[in-house]
Amino acid sequence: MPDRASVERRLRRLGFSDDGTRVLADHFLDAEERGKRSHGLARIDFLETLPDLDARAEPACVADEPGYQRWEGRGALGYLTLDAIVRAQLAAPPDHARLVVASECFPTGMLGHWVRRLADGGLVSALTATSPARLASPAGGPALAGTNPLAIGVPSSDGRPVVADVSMAKAPWGDVIAGDASEADVVPFGGEQAHKAFALAVGLQLLVDSLVAGGFGAVLLVARPEADPVPGLRTLADGLRLPGDR
Amino acid sequence: MPDRASVERRLRRLGFSDDGTRVLADHFLDAEERGKRSHGLARIDFLETLPDLDARAEPACVADEPGYQRWEGRGALGYLTLDAIVRAQLAAPPDHARLVVASECFPTGMLGHWVRRLADGGLVSALTATSPARLASPAGGPALAGTNPLAIGVPSSDGRPVVADVSMAKAPWGDVIAGDASEADVVPFGGEQAHKAFALAVGLQLLVDSLVAGGFGAVLLVARPEADPVPGLRTLADGLRLPGDR
Repeated sequence: MPDRASVERRLRRLGFSDDGTRVLADHFLDAEERGKRSHGLARIDFLETLPDLDARAEPACVADEPGYQRWEGRGALGYLTLDAIVRAQLAAPPDHARLVVASECFPTGMLGHWVRRLADGGLVSALTATSPARLASPAGGPALAGTNPLAIGVPSSDGRPVVADVSMAKAPWGDVIAGDASEADVVPFGGEQAHKAFALAVGLQLLVDSLVAGGFGAVLLVARPEADPVPGLRTLADGLRLPGDR
Repeated sequence: MPDRASVERRLRRLGFSDDGTRVLADHFLDAEERGKRSHGLARIDFLETLPDLDARAEPACVADEPGYQRWEGRGALGYLTLDAIVRAQLAAPPDHARLVVASECFPTGMLGHWVRRLADGGLVSALTATSPARLASPAGGPALAGTNPLAIGVPSSDGRPVVADVSMAKAPWGDVIAGDASEADVVPFGGEQAHKAFALAVGLQLLVDSLVAGGFGAVLLVARPEADPVPGLRTLADGLRLPGDR
């Protein structure tokens, strides 16, 4: 494993606060540990190339009504906006459910990381986020949708939440940057049924774009669970790996 | 096309009210027209075999708070429960967003039908619903999740909403009943990346099961759009078919 102290040193050098440094290090090290290297330390290399990174920018909650919150990134990295949103949900969970929409929310990293934190805090959630259009229809034409992952986190009384985190792309863009995949692999997953992943990518793209006017955004549904279905599913699965298990 | 009058006659003979008959005929004929025959008239054959069909059962909204509604099927077919929910959303849209959970909500049919009605009424929505467990992990073991479709409907100022409606199965169960597919095809779609569709099916299963205690259920997110992204996407797509187009 990479050395946490050196990771934090690099982030602090970029100007992040102690808090921001910890949040980012947690995310990047979690991604490395889960083998999602395209969301890991390579992203610090990327941050180091940004000429106008504003490490002290802070997101803001600009509307807070029963069942609904709206956030703005205000120049903060998407990671930090999602962190602020997650903390706000854990600090003040909805009575039943809440839709949270965030504008200027990019990059958002490994979405499973954020829904897992909510699940660890007892909340069920689903999260998607947009990114540059890279997926074209299997029938051809220009890229119409981002790789638009959908992450779902469900808490469990056994302390082992289930976390599904699925990108609609065969290979993530980060793997291309890392040289582990070619641009030709950044297509909807599913082979001869790639039209299904393409439809999901377009649907999620338009869901976000209709709720968050302009730019990249994130949409989070967070709710209090009424039941505890994970332990029963684990019993049925009889030791088989469930999504998000290591 | 099948004759609407004969379809309605069969439904009325089963005891459905004029209203219920129209709702069911609309759904089954829409499915036939869209080539989703497994959700079409074959389902009337199936309804005719049910010994304890209660054609006059009515669903009820049992909780209605800002941003949240809970419904119970109360013996009604899932189609009629979703119809009642859709009408309630169109009659009284949320200020921003609302999560609707429904218990005893089965069968639910072609989910795209319901989100399209919401989109035609100007609301953006995402809908999923559970069904008998038929999908096993690509790694083996017992069936752990239903085919659990996810449908997303997004309205458009040009009158042509985009409707993504994706089952996580390679072939729907209805195709097996119809003899158009074998049980071996009721697996997560995606070929060598079937783990992705399996993860989505499990995530959606647990999302519903954690919000709707016991039995088959449906979870609907409905929101007022803040933007109108479909016309721009259609321009970019330059005539290519988008999800839900005929």
